[in-house]
Order: sequence, then C-alpha cells, then structure tokens
Amino acid sequence: MSAARARVRRRISVDLGERSYQVSLGPGILPSLGRAVVRATGASHAVILTVPGVGRRYAAATGRSLREAGMKVHRLQVPDGDATKNLDQIAELYGELVRFGADRKSVLVALGGGMVGDLTGFLAATYLRGISFVQVPTTLLAMVDSSIGGKVGVNLPQGKNLVGAFHQPRAVWADTELLRSLPRRERSAGFAEVIKAAAIWDEKLFARLEREAQALMDLEPGPLISVIARACEIKAEVVRRDERESGLRMLLNFGHTVGHAVETLSGYASILHGEAVAMGMVYAARRSESLGLCPVGSAERLEALCERFELPTEVPDFDRRAYLDVLRVDKKIQSSRIQYIVLRGIGSAEARPLRAGEIMPGKRG
Amino acid sequence: MSAARARVRRRISVDLGERSYQVSLGPGILPSLGRAVVRATGASHAVILTVPGVGRRYAAATGRSLREAGMKVHRLQVPDGDATKNLDQIAELYGELVRFGADRKSVLVALGGGMVGDLTGFLAATYLRGISFVQVPTTLLAMVDSSIGGKVGVNLPQGKNLVGAFHQPRAVWADTELLRSLPRRERSAGFAEVIKAAAIWDEKLFARLEREAQALMDLEPGPLISVIARACEIKAEVVRRDERESGLRMLLNFGHTVGHAVETLSGYASILHGEAVAMGMVYAARRSESLGLCPVGSAERLEALCERFELPTEVPDFDRRAYLDVLRVDKKIQSSRIQYIVLRGIGSAEARPLRAGEIMPGKRG
Repeated sequence: MSAARARVRRRISVDLGERSYQVSLGPGILPSLGRAVVRATGASHAVILTVPGVGRRYAAATGRSLREAGMKVHRLQVPDGDATKNLDQIAELYGELVRFGADRKSVLVALGGGMVGDLTGFLAATYLRGISFVQVPTTLLAMVDSSIGGKVGVNLPQGKNLVGAFHQPRAVWADTELLRSLPRRERSAGFAEVIKAAAIWDEKLFARLEREAQALMDLEPGPLISVIARACEIKAEVVRRDERESGLRMLLNFGHTVGHAVETLSGYASILHGEAVAMGMVYAARRSESLGLCPVGSAERLEALCERFELPTEVPDFDRRAYLDVLRVDKKIQSSRIQYIVLRGIGSAEARPLRAGEIMPGKRG
Repeated sequence: MSAARARVRRRISVDLGERSYQVSLGPGILPSLGRAVVRATGASHAVILTVPGVGRRYAAATGRSLREAGMKVHRLQVPDGDATKNLDQIAELYGELVRFGADRKSVLVALGGGMVGDLTGFLAATYLRGISFVQVPTTLLAMVDSSIGGKVGVNLPQGKNLVGAFHQPRAVWADTELLRSLPRRERSAGFAEVIKAAAIWDEKLFARLEREAQALMDLEPGPLISVIARACEIKAEVVRRDERESGLRMLLNFGHTVGHAVETLSGYASILHGEAVAMGMVYAARRSESLGLCPVGSAERLEALCERFELPTEVPDFDRRAYLDVLRVDKKIQSSRIQYIVLRGIGSAEARPLRAGEIMPGKRG
C-alpha cells in the first residue's frame, strides 16, 4: 500500500451541524489516515484500540501513518468478541488512558469491527467527559453500518447495548483493501446490514444486490465500493434526520429486535451479529406479511437474497418463553410495547408498537 | 410542609436551546416536585437515588409527591461519601434499573448533595444511551453549584471526575427548607461555592456576603434565598455561554485545581469539597498576587470572607512532590500545562496555562 495509491474513491457527508463528519472510502487509503486525523481533530496524541487479529495485520501501518503525521501514538488491545464489550473492560481501559497521559486533546482510534468501534466510542464519550475519536472500520459490517452514526456502548449481563451514549466520530476512514483478509462468513454477515439498508429504504439497491450478489461476495472493487457507498449514504441520511433515534432512526433496527434476542440466547458466541440480523429480518418480513402489512412474496424475496449472500434465515429453536423474556428487557421497550420494525414492501418499513407476544405469537397466533 | 405553602420564590432559566431548563427555588416546595417532574419530562416512572441520611428525612415526601403526580416510583440508596462515586457502584445501579424495568421514558431523581447528583446524572447519561433526570439538591453546595450545568461523572482510583459526561437535568428543584437539617460544617462548605461565584464574577455579591455573613450562616430566609438565587444566576450565565467548558466555564474551576489535589491526597474522607475549594481559592489568590496579576490585598480580603463562613484557608502540608503528581494527572492538563484560574481582582478571574511547578513553586518560587 504505497502512499501514491492512497486515493479516496468516495466521500459521504454525515451532516449533523457542529458534529458533522465525513466517511472516506477507497482501496489502500490506510496510509493516509494520519493526515486525515490531524485535519479532523488537530490532535497530537492518538491511542489506537484494536483486537489481536486486526492488530497483527494493520496496527503497525496505522501507527506509522499517525506518527508520520506528527502524532505521539499509544496502542491498546482487547480480546476479540462481543463478550469484551463490558464495563470491566471499560474500567481497565480508563486506567490505561490515564497511564498514557491521554488528555482532552487526545484522539482515540477504533481499528476493528463493530465491537471495537462501540467500545472505543463509549470510552471516548466518557473519558474526561468526552474526547474525540475516529473510526477505522476493518469489517464490512462496520464500514456500512456501525461506524457511522455515533451509537456507542457496552453490554450488561442483562442485555446488549443497555449502556451507552450518542457520540459521533470525527471521521470514518474505510480502506476497502482490508476486506480482502475478512473470512467469508464475516463478509456475509456484513452484507446483512447492506441488505437491511436496501430492504427498509431503497428498492433499487435491493435489486442491484440481487443482480450482483456473486460479484459482491467476490469483492469485485467496482460493484463493492459503489454498494458500500450507497449503504453509507442511506445510514448517513437516516442519522441526519434523526440523530438520537426518536423516530425515523428506529427503522435501522429492522431485524435487530429478534436478532438481539437470538444473540442473547445463544450467548453472543456462536452467531455473528449480521447472521442474527438476517434471521431477524426474514422473521420480521414473514410477520409483516401475516399481519397483512406488506405484499405477499416480500419475505420470500428477502429470504432468497439472504441465501445468495450465504446467510442463515431461520431463528434457532429456543423456548418461546425465553425469547419473550429477552424481548421484554430489550431497551426499545416503552410502556410494555416494543417499537417493532415491520416491512411495508421491499424498500419501505415502519415502526409498530407491538407487545412481545404479538411479535412472537404462540402456535395459534 | 403543606401543599399550600409550596410556593416557588425564584426561577432561574438555564438557556441551552433544546436542553434548556429551570432552577426553581423556595422554602417548602418539595411537595410540588411531582407535578414539576411530570411537566418537565412527561415521565410516568421515576427512580429516586439517595443516601441513607437524606433518604431517612426526605425520601418518603419525595416519593409521595411523585406518586401523587401519577408516577410509579422506585428508590435506590447508595452509601454516603465521595468514595461511592465509582464505576463499581455505577455497574450495580445499572442492574437495579434493569430490574425496575426503567426504560427510555423513565426519569431519575437525584435526591441529595453533589455526589448523588454526579452519580445519578452519569447513570442517566449512559443508561440506554441517555434518559432524563431531575436534580433535587439537599445541600447548599448542590443548590448553588453542582446541580446546575450538567457536569456529571465518577472518580477513578487515579483521580476525581476523570470519567463523565455533559448531561443536563430537565429541572432543578431546590427546597431551601431542607437546608435547616444541614450540619453547620456543610453549610460553610456550601458557602465556599457562593464565595467562588462572587470572587470570579460579581464584586457586589462579594460585598454583600461580607455584610451579611452572619445572617446567611444563620439561614435567614430573605438574604439566603436572594444570595442562592444570585449564585445560581451566575452559574446559569456561565454555563449558557460555554456549556462544554471550552473556555469561559473554566473560571468555575477557581480554587478547584489545588482543591482537588487536597481532596485526592487526603483520600476524600476528612475534608469536604467546599473546604478544599476554600483552601484552593485562597491559595490561588495569593499566587495571583505574587504573580502580580491582582491588586495586593485581594487574597487577604478573600481569606477574611472565608473565615467569616468558618472555612479553612490553609492547604494541608503534604509533600510538594505529591501535590505536583496529582496536579499533573488532573483532567484539565493540556500538553503539560494546566489551565489554572487566577484572580484579576475581586469579581474577576481568568485562565492561565501554567506548569504544575509554577502553580506550586518550590521554596524559592
């Protein structure tokens, strides 16, 4: 990755007034991260947070780029996996930041997938009452979804993402070359969030995914960058219109209500987030059909697309009561109703306040 | 305290756009808290957080008022003292909130002094990515200072308030009757922050404190409410002009840099926050004089006023190196300089970037 190749192919603006920032996207842009961080933050001290697998591959190049831009650089590493996203981990990391002398002008750099971004973002939101951070997503899922929009946080034993903040990054720097090292299963999981964006917002993107599934799974640069950029645009637009999830932004939870329940019940370990979302989306689409909310055939079309991207589409057969218990503790509960996202057709969705039992009816339901 | 007596004597607006709120002040207003909370938040579920001493006296009346306004009420109690303001405590409280079924429409009610407000506020800032909270300050210090402005957080083993957020309350509801039960030493500590507001901002208030010290220490309602209201106005004005402490708001740290160091070195236990602030203010005023920044005699005048309010004015004789170590980890460190607040005269202050060694020079300094 020479500096000469470091050309940004696409920029997407996330317009949030004084909290605005850009998503920069392209192959081989990691070496120019440092200058981008200095431009966006003015910081002279960076702390990289990553996981072992990603760190082994990219931490050296990331550190070099930051140092070449004139910054002092420290590095922190946490174990991989969603189980790391907890309060004990956060407490330990605060201590490390103090030890590094991190101050209000320091910047945290999240080098990794969604877990690293959520953890780093929450750390940045709360250390010294808030310092800046930059997202360097290394997974497809993080590039198209979790790195954008400022939702950061950690899990409690009682449920996912019950603690957190809205804290926007100062920049998102997505080097699409990094996706080449991603295991095939994680590629699929990333496309689940692209499918989600298309399903709730953009039928044309959905049709394009149907046409180009093979090329996309093979990471052909042309289609890949164009599709990632479109998913980022959708996310940016939704966040711009409803930063703190008081309405519209809830649509992005399509597939996530039941998906989260699957993750909780499986102990986060055996199922990737994107896989759980795929299961949740197909479940929600079928439910939308049976409630008469979307044209018959929508669920089948969504299921077929998920399968093209090698995603699972059936929720695991846990006890129904266990599902209901988890749904009820889900953070979107409002006076015993859950804002459940239903499909109104491919490319259109809406929030419906449903009881847990209406989302998961008994055999007769 | 009958409802008929529950008349608000003063309202001070904290103007922060969509985050604006009012400070309501008066004797016997606790019984009308419930209606005020409903008006400000629309919540139907409240969780009161308090400490044993305050809880014994006021939790029942607080709960009654909230229930009479139609809310479901839960109550949490934490041990008194600044040592409670830590991450383990927060983790435990999150679990309790989940157990109570607290959701995004619930409101937390901080019933107590500064520690309770900081802890409750941080909980509210981060639970479910942020829910609303209301301050019901029961100490003078909390009424005039810590309940206003949205600085919330917890301590780390390495230092005070190193973790936190800016999260504004939806209302501050200050019943001045509650001050009658306050030990004399805590009264004094509260007046330290009133003296601070006067010293940095308002020479007329300073002169009034000099004239009415005795009446104020005796809690005579007329002077007391008027002086508290003026201190609240100053705080509200400074916060309005610089919510996130990028400049002006730093002035409120007058006396706090060395004051925090005193608290840290004494283990938070034996010295009240207001007492530490008084020591830090007199120290800073003397330092300002010896740097030629304010008229000779200012420090003496400040010291005399602190003494009228029975406040200590000499910093404890810890090792100078210990002081310097603590100053350097203080969160206001920016590239090895500390934004130290110096006096330019009674009623006027400014931030100066000084090294720890310049704040606390050796014997020859």
